[in-house]
Amino acid sequence: MDCLFCKIVAGEIPATPVYQDDEVFAFRDIHPQAPTHILIIPKRHIASVNDLDAADAALVGKLFLTGKRLAAELGIAESGYRLVMNTNADAGQTVFHIHLHLLGGRTLGWPPG
Amino acid sequence: MDCLFCKIVAGEIPATPVYQDDEVFAFRDIHPQAPTHILIIPKRHIASVNDLDAADAALVGKLFLTGKRLAAELGIAESGYRLVMNTNADAGQTVFHIHLHLLGGRTLGWPPG
Repeated sequence: MDCLFCKIVAGEIPATPVYQDDEVFAFRDIHPQAPTHILIIPKRHIASVNDLDAADAALVGKLFLTGKRLAAELGIAESGYRLVMNTNADAGQTVFHIHLHLLGGRTLGWPPG
Repeated sequence: MDCLFCKIVAGEIPATPVYQDDEVFAFRDIHPQAPTHILIIPKRHIASVNDLDAADAALVGKLFLTGKRLAAELGIAESGYRLVMNTNADAGQTVFHIHLHLLGGRTLGWPPG
């Protein structure tokens, strides 16, 4: 599997997890765009939102619930945070293993890119 | 219920649905930030991501799957699109009924706000 994030999940490339369980892995973005910037990924390889099917709904929801949990643990739940997922070139998706960005700790502008 | 989006779901405030089913309603943002800018909401009132619990995972995932479906129908699945959900003031959340933004049809910059 020539996927950067699968290698991180497998421990072949080091990353410091901020959370993990059987299905989900979360770690800090190496190019943070805000004081808190975490990537939340499924351990199972899914290339993009375009590859999701109905059976994946609960897993995607769990990425969101992990974002909620981490926002609380990291002290940004009340100040606020943005959850972002990019698909393909116009959105700047660079790693084709779905990842939910959790950003917070500063005022985030609008539009979101 | 004094919630703008609940009133839209109830038909008390007009909006043109681009998709709806028993659980989900999607309509165009009245202040679009991209050629395609749609809001995808659950019909059930949930104020923010902070109010989600584990039982909501499948519903949140369904918002994402609706985004995937609409991106395909609107011709932006391959060019790309960004899915965004804001929580509280730092992220600019203005309506406290969760809504997933689907943006596409142009290059979206980074950082996402």
